[in-house]
Amino acid sequence: MEGPFLAVDWGTTNRRAWRIGAGGASEAEEKDERGMISVPPGGFAAEAAALRARLGDLPMLCAGMVGSNRGWAETAYVACPLDLEAIAAALLWVEPDRTALLPGAAMQGGRPDVMRGEEVQALGAVAAGLAPPDALLCLPGTHCKWAEMGGGRLEGFVTAMTGELFALLRDHSLLGAQLAAAVAPGPAFLEGVAASSGDLFARLFGVRAAALLGRRGDEDSAAYASGLLIGADVRARGVPGREIYVLAEPALGALYGAAIKALGGRAVAVDGRAAFLAGIGAIWRLT
Amino acid sequence: MEGPFLAVDWGTTNRRAWRIGAGGASEAEEKDERGMISVPPGGFAAEAAALRARLGDLPMLCAGMVGSNRGWAETAYVACPLDLEAIAAALLWVEPDRTALLPGAAMQGGRPDVMRGEEVQALGAVAAGLAPPDALLCLPGTHCKWAEMGGGRLEGFVTAMTGELFALLRDHSLLGAQLAAAVAPGPAFLEGVAASSGDLFARLFGVRAAALLGRRGDEDSAAYASGLLIGADVRARGVPGREIYVLAEPALGALYGAAIKALGGRAVAVDGRAAFLAGIGAIWRLT
Repeated sequence: MEGPFLAVDWGTTNRRAWRIGAGGASEAEEKDERGMISVPPGGFAAEAAALRARLGDLPMLCAGMVGSNRGWAETAYVACPLDLEAIAAALLWVEPDRTALLPGAAMQGGRPDVMRGEEVQALGAVAAGLAPPDALLCLPGTHCKWAEMGGGRLEGFVTAMTGELFALLRDHSLLGAQLAAAVAPGPAFLEGVAASSGDLFARLFGVRAAALLGRRGDEDSAAYASGLLIGADVRARGVPGREIYVLAEPALGALYGAAIKALGGRAVAVDGRAAFLAGIGAIWRLT
Repeated sequence: MEGPFLAVDWGTTNRRAWRIGAGGASEAEEKDERGMISVPPGGFAAEAAALRARLGDLPMLCAGMVGSNRGWAETAYVACPLDLEAIAAALLWVEPDRTALLPGAAMQGGRPDVMRGEEVQALGAVAAGLAPPDALLCLPGTHCKWAEMGGGRLEGFVTAMTGELFALLRDHSLLGAQLAAAVAPGPAFLEGVAASSGDLFARLFGVRAAALLGRRGDEDSAAYASGLLIGADVRARGVPGREIYVLAEPALGALYGAAIKALGGRAVAVDGRAAFLAGIGAIWRLT
């Protein structure tokens, strides 16, 4: 399709929405915490109407967890390898000619995996020239998505629970009181990255042992533990000698960038917002 | 010392206490949930008096977290390698000639680690002939302790947060609803053990992906996830071709035994109660 539309990145917790003009540029933008889990069952149509009241009475494309089994309606998973055309061909119109939900992406082979939303960013990054057509992309968050691009397509991906595991340890584990400090990519973080090559469950208990034996102060424990987890995640991707394109908010992107560098790769920061808008704009034109 | 005494295994959550007769045999036994965290600061002497009122007015030896910085009083850590003599030489008498707390054990080298209580079981297992003087012992629980015995001494040990990580995932993570089923050492557990060789954070997310894609029912998810975690723990110990002496309650011991067998070792179940009583009895005689 052509002409203006509303683009929505509707995640689990957060939501971003844009009015995209006839020329393809963003004309208005908002961000709020009306993610999927804050919308009651049956409440999505009213949410879409409220978005239109603020941003314009236009057709709407929604990416992300809004298309999951806890969202507005459950959309299909399109199997890898996939491109923007495959996504555009699998839209679910929940309001005829008005509102469509994007499908998710799946790995259906021996190692099952799923994503909802990050595939738009990954394919958009390549479409906009922010990453080359053959590249490894890193999209960290609660669950870190690693997207392998080939010939501009999403060839495959891996999801690691890295961010959620750190939050579990900090918020609910016996290490919790030690992990309250802010995490920066300094020496303690890099020490954790260096120690992340194996026996991770023992290394994590070592955070407690090191404190009890006076070997590390708790001002460094959170950074060390974060380095352990992010280091183990990065090590599993085969980064030595590779350029990794990182789409992340700056603080988390800096941690992944430092781990990638320490483990022999080179991190290139990519503007995730621009990547998303390029991806969803292309899908709109292909629809 | 000689003569009867009270032996207490005073852990974080649970407590076991025995009256040991002049001949060294248990004459009375109780188990309750008056572990360290349920005793208010300053309340330990009253707890000890209550134990004496029930079991007998005798001297008392207390092992475990009661000697930690949140317990009755903080005792030292004795560095590995250590034996029962070294423990007996480092008792802390919190009530003169009446009540003593055992020290903990520590690894002070490049990889710091600590334990409180399990060293009595490990050394006691060897002293009682339940495990040979050169052996690898496995003591699973919230934190799994792996004790390397050499010449009857505790040469070194590793603590892995395996049990706590499983509880965090089940009780607080996005996988939680999938992990409610009971865990048995069947095919799904062994599938997890087989998949535990690397990229664990991705394998854990795979529990969710497999369910969303209809590849594994949630009746099997908990066993698979447990197999992943226990498998990774066991793999880090170098078990192929070794006999591993497992001191655990039966259900957890069966899981570790199945993982050890699947990974090429041989598990030998050891009576943890008998091992503890042998260890603390020997310490009493050495005091």
